[in-house]
Amino acid sequence: MHAAIAGGLARLLPAAQVATATLQEAEHGLTAERLANTDVLTWWGHLAHDQVADEVVRRVQARVLEGMGLIVLHSGHYSKIFRQLMGTTCSLTWREADERERIWVCNPGHPIARGLGRYFELPMEEMYGEPFAVPAPEEQVFLSWFEGGDVFRSGCCWRRGNGSIFYFRPGHEHYPTFHNETVLRVIANAAEWARPRGQWVDSCPNVPESAEAVAPK
Amino acid sequence: MHAAIAGGLARLLPAAQVATATLQEAEHGLTAERLANTDVLTWWGHLAHDQVADEVVRRVQARVLEGMGLIVLHSGHYSKIFRQLMGTTCSLTWREADERERIWVCNPGHPIARGLGRYFELPMEEMYGEPFAVPAPEEQVFLSWFEGGDVFRSGCCWRRGNGSIFYFRPGHEHYPTFHNETVLRVIANAAEWARPRGQWVDSCPNVPESAEAVAPK
Amino acid sequence: MHAAIAGGLARLLPAAQVATATLQEAEHGLTAERLANTDVLTWWGHLAHDQVADEVVRRVQARVLEGMGLIVLHSGHYSKIFRQLMGTTCSLTWREADERERIWVCNPGHPIARGLGRYFELPMEEMYGEPFAVPAPEEQVFLSWFEGGDVFRSGCCWRRGNGSIFYFRPGHEHYPTFHNETVLRVIANAAEWARPRGQWVDSCPNVPESAEAVAPK
Amino acid sequence: MHAAIAGGLARLLPAAQVATATLQEAEHGLTAERLANTDVLTWWGHLAHDQVADEVVRRVQARVLEGMGLIVLHSGHYSKIFRQLMGTTCSLTWREADERERIWVCNPGHPIARGLGRYFELPMEEMYGEPFAVPAPEEQVFLSWFEGGDVFRSGCCWRRGNGSIFYFRPGHEHYPTFHNETVLRVIANAAEWARPRGQWVDSCPNVPESAEAVAPK
Repeated sequence: MHAAIAGGLARLLPAAQVATATLQEAEHGLTAERLANTDVLTWWGHLAHDQVADEVVRRVQARVLEGMGLIVLHSGHYSKIFRQLMGTTCSLTWREADERERIWVCNPGHPIARGLGRYFELPMEEMYGEPFAVPAPEEQVFLSWFEGGDVFRSGCCWRRGNGSIFYFRPGHEHYPTFHNETVLRVIANAAEWARPRGQWVDSCPNVPESAEAVAPK
Repeated sequence: MHAAIAGGLARLLPAAQVATATLQEAEHGLTAERLANTDVLTWWGHLAHDQVADEVVRRVQARVLEGMGLIVLHSGHYSKIFRQLMGTTCSLTWREADERERIWVCNPGHPIARGLGRYFELPMEEMYGEPFAVPAPEEQVFLSWFEGGDVFRSGCCWRRGNGSIFYFRPGHEHYPTFHNETVLRVIANAAEWARPRGQWVDSCPNVPESAEAVAPK
Repeated sequence: MHAAIAGGLARLLPAAQVATATLQEAEHGLTAERLANTDVLTWWGHLAHDQVADEVVRRVQARVLEGMGLIVLHSGHYSKIFRQLMGTTCSLTWREADERERIWVCNPGHPIARGLGRYFELPMEEMYGEPFAVPAPEEQVFLSWFEGGDVFRSGCCWRRGNGSIFYFRPGHEHYPTFHNETVLRVIANAAEWARPRGQWVDSCPNVPESAEAVAPK
Repeated sequence: MHAAIAGGLARLLPAAQVATATLQEAEHGLTAERLANTDVLTWWGHLAHDQVADEVVRRVQARVLEGMGLIVLHSGHYSKIFRQLMGTTCSLTWREADERERIWVCNPGHPIARGLGRYFELPMEEMYGEPFAVPAPEEQVFLSWFEGGDVFRSGCCWRRGNGSIFYFRPGHEHYPTFHNETVLRVIANAAEWARPRGQWVDSCPNVPESAEAVAPK
């Protein structure tokens, strides 16, 4: 799955350097040095969320707040890193029933929707339904319609610290979702949208400003 | 239609004083005096948006900014007052095909969803689809699923000035939507949510503050 | 300090039951049973943030998401619970210089500003300055002006899950801030604003919906 | 004044084509053709807001919703176009007293703050104070501190339709504010931030979707 995503991004974003990291690698492949050189991180996970080391989660969170973009895919809604950044449970409802999903663009001028039509479809996907327990999205890009009668806020944007976060719903492991050209296009667009916007380093609060005070005592 | 809504509100909110106003009345029934004594105004309109006097629209807008709640129903999305308060086109897509609508609660802890289950259904309604051209909702209460394959942000909250605004999608004139008990419950909940929160009067900007200045020149 | 706040709340909100809990108590006085019976929790802390047990923080977070209001005071910006709910560092700049603080109301219609004038002053307070590393506030109630040349977003509102969160800046332990009548009024107003809005319990995502599916397979 | 701004932008954004338009020109220099070829419009106005033709305001609003960026400067807060896009009064308090203004960066990672320090100062400016009657900013970039004891949300971002809107406070006509290098840098940064993000044309709501319906009747 990570190979499919990486391959798609490398093809659609020829100027980008694309690499992968997996749970099994030392530090899950997310060393401090590597994160420091990463502009945007894409995260997919499912059954093994608890096996992700808290130390690595803290490191990724710090790097997002420093400016790295984060794209959370599908069951990554329940990852430690996403819950940590949202502050909420990030729960939802779900059903595995080989359902058709129709993903609507509700913000057609948003850069993440660039090049898309009014909607696109995935012939079979897992269903995710509301309520999606996240903070109110700052921009809503996609909403999903499911054959079985459910809806979902499928593409949501937040800014946290200097970092940009995009949650994108599709991607169940039983289906060829990450071989779908539009899905890859969305992830590539999101990677461009989520690129670091600024270089500010949060230097802790212990910085007395007396030298700059207007009327120092 | 206004009678059905007013009757439902009077029954569900026994402490409230409920009255109606229509386009045909002088000043559409929305005189300055009457608005000054109104806590929450419910607005439905369809073909005659252009017949609403600009003077009355300005008066209603001023009263909302002063603190009056506003509940905009269905085709009221295209009313002058809603467009004026949102600043956008408020456009959407639509289809009349006697479709089933399933309205999902995506914020079950919100007061407007009080007493509702996970969703409720209307057996036949007009379809409204995305993109819904409004500012990002500050709180999203409902999302609609339509039999024909569309979705819509059906319950949206905004604060403007001192006023609270709720848009609620259902209510096509061909269907008995405003006789549906859950629809009336939502409007009653919204009326409680949208009650004035504060009494501040916006006194124009021409208020020099020199008496309070720390270091007057 | 907790006694001053509790006394003020008991006086200003005569219908409320007010109690205190401190770090030194077993489970910091925040047992599951006690939290379950709490509508709004006020949090002040300074040097001992690290001594707050992670288990208690998780419990308080869960209860906020369930609907309990949370009012975070002053140096509580750096508490585990506030950082956990915000997802950011919550850092700021600071200076101890016995400065005058003028707290401006920037949303006079907001219920937390009820009964206040255009601003109020504290003759001496610690300075907190921008950047305040939190998610964009959903409503901004207060901004502070400091004699020494700094500004700060002093009153910020967020909704997380079913819970309402208010951060209020003043309250350094060297000054009689919590004996100031306006400060107590703000906390009392915030306690009313932050009361639970809904009763929904987040029941984890493992809830297949097949019985309700429109077209079950 | 427009010459100073245009000159600064031309220097700081050498790839940009910069031109000016004034009230006195036919259609205020904002013809449909010209707007169609404009990516970002900067708006300053003071005493003559009422002389701006409603037809031109509607045209500019439509073009913003289509994707053009809009930067509103200083007393432009009271322009028809800004009030139209915000939906609120956009009022504030003010005082002319040759006061020092210190403008703080409260979102240092935001592209509009690129290249700035923690704050910058204008030795003399008109004071603008809270409450600033606008919808809650989606991103807050600057806050102002005034010598006389006031504060103001000096740099505010909103998205409306496809368009990006930035309000920037400084710029009273009695002072050389638009010759200040940091002020020009902010406007140039804002012009880059506000460039059109998407090409979607809002095609009115009258677009039945029956051909795409899942289950047409």
